[in-house]
Parts: sequence; structure tokens; C-alpha cells
Amino acid sequence: MVASINLGLQFPCSLSNNVVKLGFHSSSPSPNNKRRVSLMVNANSNRRLGGTINNGENNNINNKNYDKVNGVRVAEAPLTLRKLKEDSAEEALVTCMHGRFQEGIFVYRQIFAIRSYEIGPDQTATMETILNFLQETALNHVANSGIGGNGFGATRQMSIRKLIWVVTRIQVQVQRYSSWGDIIEIDTWVDAHGKNGMRRDWVIRDHFTKEVIVKATSTWVMMNRETRKLCKIPEEVREELTPFYINRFAISNEDTYSEKIHKLTDQDAENIQTGLAPRWNDMDANQHVNNVKYIGWILESLPMKVLEDYYMTSMTLEFRRECTQSNMLESMATPTSKLIHANNSINRKVNNNLQFTHLLRLLDDDQRPEVVRARTEWHFKNYADSI
Amino acid sequence: MVASINLGLQFPCSLSNNVVKLGFHSSSPSPNNKRRVSLMVNANSNRRLGGTINNGENNNINNKNYDKVNGVRVAEAPLTLRKLKEDSAEEALVTCMHGRFQEGIFVYRQIFAIRSYEIGPDQTATMETILNFLQETALNHVANSGIGGNGFGATRQMSIRKLIWVVTRIQVQVQRYSSWGDIIEIDTWVDAHGKNGMRRDWVIRDHFTKEVIVKATSTWVMMNRETRKLCKIPEEVREELTPFYINRFAISNEDTYSEKIHKLTDQDAENIQTGLAPRWNDMDANQHVNNVKYIGWILESLPMKVLEDYYMTSMTLEFRRECTQSNMLESMATPTSKLIHANNSINRKVNNNLQFTHLLRLLDDDQRPEVVRARTEWHFKNYADSI
Repeated sequence: MVASINLGLQFPCSLSNNVVKLGFHSSSPSPNNKRRVSLMVNANSNRRLGGTINNGENNNINNKNYDKVNGVRVAEAPLTLRKLKEDSAEEALVTCMHGRFQEGIFVYRQIFAIRSYEIGPDQTATMETILNFLQETALNHVANSGIGGNGFGATRQMSIRKLIWVVTRIQVQVQRYSSWGDIIEIDTWVDAHGKNGMRRDWVIRDHFTKEVIVKATSTWVMMNRETRKLCKIPEEVREELTPFYINRFAISNEDTYSEKIHKLTDQDAENIQTGLAPRWNDMDANQHVNNVKYIGWILESLPMKVLEDYYMTSMTLEFRRECTQSNMLESMATPTSKLIHANNSINRKVNNNLQFTHLLRLLDDDQRPEVVRARTEWHFKNYADSI
Repeated sequence: MVASINLGLQFPCSLSNNVVKLGFHSSSPSPNNKRRVSLMVNANSNRRLGGTINNGENNNINNKNYDKVNGVRVAEAPLTLRKLKEDSAEEALVTCMHGRFQEGIFVYRQIFAIRSYEIGPDQTATMETILNFLQETALNHVANSGIGGNGFGATRQMSIRKLIWVVTRIQVQVQRYSSWGDIIEIDTWVDAHGKNGMRRDWVIRDHFTKEVIVKATSTWVMMNRETRKLCKIPEEVREELTPFYINRFAISNEDTYSEKIHKLTDQDAENIQTGLAPRWNDMDANQHVNNVKYIGWILESLPMKVLEDYYMTSMTLEFRRECTQSNMLESMATPTSKLIHANNSINRKVNNNLQFTHLLRLLDDDQRPEVVRARTEWHFKNYADSI
């Protein structure tokens, strides 16, 4: 199936001349290395570091004596000792920042705090944010696996052969969106997908309750960076990857492949947003539009009422072709029901759910070649069902 | 000066009905609270958690015995003990994730790892990323100060009075851009600015070398959320803020106010990019275009050659008016020299530096009201001077 598709989108992409720099990786494990300090910190200083502010007991902080400002006497330990504790906790933070392995080498986990600029108009983390997190975890997984080459997501044997990963499909199911300051943890792992593909799955959990809030799966194939041709996985690369493979599914195969995404035509499309142009900031380190940016364009073709009154519960993207800064695109969408049954309007609600089929295509030639096919599912927001 | 300007842009903005959730803030300091565990972790586990991968000693990881995969014997401690250590380091991470106070209550510091999606086409953190980090640190500063109200960046007394902060000016000077995986630390603090303004400064350092890589300063005034009118700082709010004020400058006042940003006219502008429309994803939690998004539009009006061959060393934004999803904008730019001397071309290079003056304005009425005036400075990239 895959071999006949002109795939150019890179995620993660491989970069020549770019050695990944990770602060805490040192080739000389010197005991004097600042990045390898002891993490001796006690519970007391922990409380101080995190702060106990906004606790309702301490509402009027108008005094100039800051010893009690945070509800904890900050002068309780000598200054130098406190400094040491703080430094150590800081080192723990830095050490864990890029994530680490779980279950031997099978699962890689990274913890994220949702930042203020990662939430959207409805005050929760956007789908774009979620995909950014998934990408970051995947790249750190490879970079920390011991098989990483000199590029984003490529293994050493791939780099030697100028091979890069290209994503063909990604599916994300959201149970609940996070808010600013929430702490989430993302697990990711890989497995074979057919003979020449790789599957990468992710599960996002609330760090404290361990509630699963997002599940995602993706498939990847290999491409020559220069010829732009797809290729089989070379044996040397397979040997690098296989030890990490684990047969576990974030989303069952039945769920993933149950429904084909139809190709939208001009006749089918209920909404068309045309003349979309990539901005300079949409380009990634490989001078291509980062695939996460497609989400913004996909949303462009939805009625404002859907964006305002519904939240996205599921998104599937099928990547067909790459997009560069010089391309112009159009974004098309239609309620999926319309493709199957006539006489359905955009306001159709079935159990408060909506489903849309999308197409992003290039405007550059008359063929209007496909860039991305997508399907999104939406659930009506209401008080009883607030996210 | 400020009172005559119609300021609507909110950064940080105040949100009604939105209680800021920060994972480690608990109103009941229970010893059983999972977020308050001891941080007892030793140097040995620290090494393991961070990983010692890609260290050049361990290039061929083709074996299925993952005990040695990361160059460290993972079975060196009993499983349960190791698990405990990992959990504790994880808690340290979570505790520090939102930042914490330094120097009593005067300076707030947050540590960031540069993520893969925060770098641009030249493989370094973008100016947009830097402004996002500054915003996040500022908001966490307020949220952890003990005076935070129920909104983004507002104090308790501000929330009671429906007041929000609006930024009037921000200036960023970049010495060096960071790469993926780099660890940076951002210090921020506040001081009075005139009688009814506040100044917020930031310094970004490389976490390991402490080299200063970015300096920034901004000024803020207060606005009524409902009437959209600017107002004086109420005495009760001033009492909340004053204990935190410190007279320290990231960028000297002389540097900040030495040069006025001229207002561009149709005659002056050498490049005009028109018909720019906010995307749904550009909206922030207050349904306004987040001010960080303006950077993307400002860059739109620069010649591609500047974006490709230069890096931005300085940016000053003056905010004049808010922008909502229904607005259309145009982005204008011209080399600053053109405003001063005629007969200068866009390719002018003085000591490998370029300076541009920018204007973003609304297209909605014939007046074309100003949204943002900006000035950017650029330095030529070359091998001897690589960033």
C-alpha cells in the first residue's frame, strides 16, 4: 500500500550536520561534572520549593518581611544548606527533564507541565499541543535509546544510509483535555508494523491520578533523504530497532482500521477554506511544514460553531505528500454522514457527537494533489459533561 | 502617555471562572499528599535516570539483553529500591516544574528544556518560543507569589476589582539562541514603572554555564476587564505588589528608551503583506490573539533573504490595540535607515547588521488603526559567527 504513495512529510525528520545536544549527556562521566550531583533533598525543603502559596490561610501578604510570605518560614535552615538543597532539587529536575525508560527498555516516559501558551480559547491544552508532546517524547525516546544517529529520530544505521522516518498515519483519541499547570506523563513504545513499517504508540496519563487521558498510535516508513524514495528497512536498522519492540496497543487494531477515510471532492465538500499559506514559523528544522501545523489548517475549514461548542475527541491524519513554504493549500471539510447519506445537514447531532472528513490539498497545480486526509470526531460541551 | 492609547491586548490576561490549577498547590498540607514526598535520591540513580546514552563507548546495541543497553547496568539495585528512587526523582521534577523563588521573594526562576517543536528552520529556539517562556515564567511568578487571584497574572485585589494587566511594551535582546535539548533558566522580577505602571524584567541563562543568553524588559498598565478602560493602580493592589519590587534592570533604561519607533506609512513601507487572518489556534484563553502570535505576522513582511541569512538580535514591540478572530491585518516593514535617509536599499549592511521598522495594522476600517509598532535588529550569519 505504502510504496505507491509519494510521501515527503518528515516527523521526526533527520538532519545532517546536527548532533543532538542533550544537556545531561556527557561522554566523560567525571565525578566533578555539575550534572551528576547527589539528589539529597528532604521533605521539608521539598515543601518549600514547591511553595504552599494560595492555600487560603495566608491571603494578605502586605508585609515587607518575606520570611513568612509563602506560608513556610524560609529561614528555618541556614542559608548555605538551603541553597544546597535547592541546587540538588534543581539537578533532579534537569536530570528527568528529557524523560527516561520504564519497564527496562520497552517504554519511554516523559513528564510535562501544561504551559500557559499551550492552552487554547477553551482554556485546555490544544490538539496541536498534544501532538507536539507526542513528537517530543518520540524524539527523546530515540535520542536516549543508545541507537540514536545524528538527526531527529533517526538511528545510527539510518544516518549512515541517509534514511529518515516519515509518518504515514497518526490517530489520537482524547478522553479529557488538560489545563494550565496540570502535570501529565506520556509513555511511548514501538513495534513492527507489517514487514517494512514501524508502529509507535503513546498513552498520556494524569501524573497524579494515573487516569488515561489520551491514547495515540502512528505508523512510519523509511525514506531516503536525498532521493525522496521509500525503501525497505535495512537489516542493520532492523537489528537496532528490534530489541525495543513490544507488542502492546494503545488503540486496538480494530479501532484503528475499522473505517477508511474517504477522499473529499469539490462536490462533497461543504466548507472550503482556500489560499492558506505556510508562515515562516510553520517550517521545521528541515524546511518543511511541521506536520503538527496541519491541525491548524484542518480546523480552519470547520464552522465556528463546532469549534466553540464541541471538543475534539478523536483525530486521524493520513499523510500523503509534503508541503514547503512555497506551497499554497486549501482545507476542505464535510460532515462524514454527508458522504454516506444525502440530505444530512451540518447541524446533525447524533448523541451529541459530530464527525467530519477533511482534505488538505495543494493549490499549485491543476491536479490539486492531496497532502492530508483526516477525520475528526467532536463531542458537544455542556455543564454535565464539562471537560 | 499611556492613558490616551486604546489598549486592549491582554498579556497575561485575567479569566473569570478560571481558578488556576497548579498540581503541587494543595490547601491541605497533608503528610499523605503524594505531591509532598521526600526527595531522597542518590547520585547513582541520578546517573541512571538521566541516561548515559550516546556516549560513544557503546555504539552497537544489537543485543536483546537490555541490562547493558544504556551503558549502565540497570540491575545494580534491587527492583523495588530502584523504583523508589525513580519515583522520588520524578517527584523532584514535578515539584520544581513550575519554578520557584530565589533571593527571598524578589526573583522567580523557572527551568526549561528546549523542545523539538520549539526550534525553527535554523534549528534554534525561535523568538516566539522565547516570548512564550517569558510569559510562562511571569504567570508562574504571580501564581506562586501568594497574591495570585483567579486569573492569569492578576493579583487577588485585581480580581476583586475586575482588573487585568495589559502589556504596553516588550523588548528582547538575544545574545545566543538555544538548541533542542538545551537547558535554560529564566529569572524574572518586577518593579514600579512610573506612578501607575509596572516593569517586568527577565534574564535567560544557560543552566550549566550561567552564560546570559537573553535579556528582556516589559511595561504593564492596568485595565478594567469590562469597560476596557485603563486605570490607576488601586492602593490595595499596590500594597500587594510593592513587597516584590526590586530595583534591578535586565536592560538599562538608556538602552530601552534611546530610540523611538517611527510610525510606518504606506509611503515608507518597503514590504507589505496584507490579508493576514488570525487562525482559531492563535486565540488565547481570553478569545484574543495572543501577543506572541504577532511575531509570526511581523516576520511575514520581511524578505526571505533576511529570515534565511540573518538572525534576530533584538526585538521591541509596542502594543496599541487588541486583535480578535474577526480582524484582518496587514504587516508592513521597511529598513529603518530608509525612514531616516533616502536612497538606502534593503540590502544595506552596516557591520553585518540590519534594522527594520514594522507596523501591524487592522484592515477593518479606513483608518487602518495601529495594532503593534515594532523594531527588529538582525545580524548576518556566517561560519565565524555561527549561533
